[in-house]
Amino acid sequence: MAKTPSDDEVRARLDAVAYGLAVTPGFRIADLDAASTPSFDAGRTEGEKLLARMGERMSDLQERLYAHGRTGGNRSVLLVLQGLDTAGKGGIARHVLGLVDPQGVSLKAFGRPTPEELEHDFLWRIRKALPPAGRIGLFDRSHYEDILVPHAAGTADADELTARFDAIEQFERELVAGGTTIVKVALWVSRDEQYARLRERLERPDKHWKYSPNDVDVRLARPAYEAAYDEVLARSSYDIAPWYVVPADRKWFARLATSALLLRALLDLGLGWPEPTFDVTTELARLDATR
Amino acid sequence: MAKTPSDDEVRARLDAVAYGLAVTPGFRIADLDAASTPSFDAGRTEGEKLLARMGERMSDLQERLYAHGRTGGNRSVLLVLQGLDTAGKGGIARHVLGLVDPQGVSLKAFGRPTPEELEHDFLWRIRKALPPAGRIGLFDRSHYEDILVPHAAGTADADELTARFDAIEQFERELVAGGTTIVKVALWVSRDEQYARLRERLERPDKHWKYSPNDVDVRLARPAYEAAYDEVLARSSYDIAPWYVVPADRKWFARLATSALLLRALLDLGLGWPEPTFDVTTELARLDATR
Repeated sequence: MAKTPSDDEVRARLDAVAYGLAVTPGFRIADLDAASTPSFDAGRTEGEKLLARMGERMSDLQERLYAHGRTGGNRSVLLVLQGLDTAGKGGIARHVLGLVDPQGVSLKAFGRPTPEELEHDFLWRIRKALPPAGRIGLFDRSHYEDILVPHAAGTADADELTARFDAIEQFERELVAGGTTIVKVALWVSRDEQYARLRERLERPDKHWKYSPNDVDVRLARPAYEAAYDEVLARSSYDIAPWYVVPADRKWFARLATSALLLRALLDLGLGWPEPTFDVTTELARLDATR
Repeated sequence: MAKTPSDDEVRARLDAVAYGLAVTPGFRIADLDAASTPSFDAGRTEGEKLLARMGERMSDLQERLYAHGRTGGNRSVLLVLQGLDTAGKGGIARHVLGLVDPQGVSLKAFGRPTPEELEHDFLWRIRKALPPAGRIGLFDRSHYEDILVPHAAGTADADELTARFDAIEQFERELVAGGTTIVKVALWVSRDEQYARLRERLERPDKHWKYSPNDVDVRLARPAYEAAYDEVLARSSYDIAPWYVVPADRKWFARLATSALLLRALLDLGLGWPEPTFDVTTELARLDATR
């Protein structure tokens, strides 16, 4: 049996993963090898074993986070997931957040805005869905759709896009100041893998519900989306909330890499167990009197 | 390897479990053997194996339910969990709902009502937390607290309690008519087991956050709560939403029994995969043109 690595060793390894996924200046998403597995060359079987081990650690840290949230702490973690159709956002929700207690998780999938949502600023529905203190939140799509979609469709001019970038940065700085750690992940699949996954949704009756004719329209607009992602990654990767790009043709790797980023964020909170808010000796005596 | 049982065999077995947990006329909760394991005499190891197998089945049925919710279906399942402190409600949320995709689950824990909630009818906050179509909802405590607490404290007269029972029955009938299956479970621990669990929360620093001095106050009022539960179980067990009482001194059994009740509800929905809302041949051709 392998020796359990120390926290410092785990942390160094997670830093290496994060470094390998970080957005670098001049990055173009069309150049990414979506089948690559940066910082991890041990293959799928080892990857799945490692994911299970990381899950145990995440589960322990998630409980500490939850405990702090229940006793007045303000920390939370928000995982922002972006990606084209079939990139595997739902699989991350299921297989990564499925590793921890569902009570400590707050999931929100953003679709096309409703008429009520359109009557408000674009961040209104986002603010309403923020994870409460003590939770790990997951946004399946997010406020970045409000840049990606008009950018790709060409329906917003440069000033409007700049205003949205500014609003988002201010919003994220406010969240971080309030105790939220933001982990932004763009999952990226190749054209070929996207084709194969859409084809499977059309071929299998148990997958039909996941398909929408709009998926093909968006696929046809893929170059415009690539340009939109490039701009988002370049303009909204900053110290307090950088973007990570996760190659997602191999589902096991996308889950492993995203888990690594999440585990790193949880470790960084440095949470022990909260101090009791009552006198333990007194309460032991009160309890024993009821025996 | 054991032969996979047919749906009819599974259903017959689940019916037997439900029958063994159903509330019978004249039932008194103080008479329940909380360490018993009705309809299941194979022990913990077998119980845990069976739970894992049921989890796979639940997971498949949950995905069908979710698929229907995404394509216009109105069905949902609501698990209402009641029980005294330490009865294991959180463990059910974690270990039973943890068996299925977190995206398909909607969890709500009800605490003491907030000032805003108190300005509304007692069902206002309950309605706001109902699971959307396609989801499995879990209420950790529920509208039944609005009978149990005043009943145990003696702060509501008979007419008020009757009015609440009537409002609840009308509300539940409305939910069922709208497509929701309601599964009501009261988890019950013995006095001794409750003592041991509270003692553990006081002895272990990683459990302190789960303890509240109020837990001892409620323990002292246990006979009043027993009477309140007896009245709730007798007066709100009706055809469309009966109560089940799950002996919960053995955590593995409480999880197994609650899972069985939930699986039975999911099987009863009889859901296949939804029909496509588009023409498959047309879409295959459109997709192939993008290859």
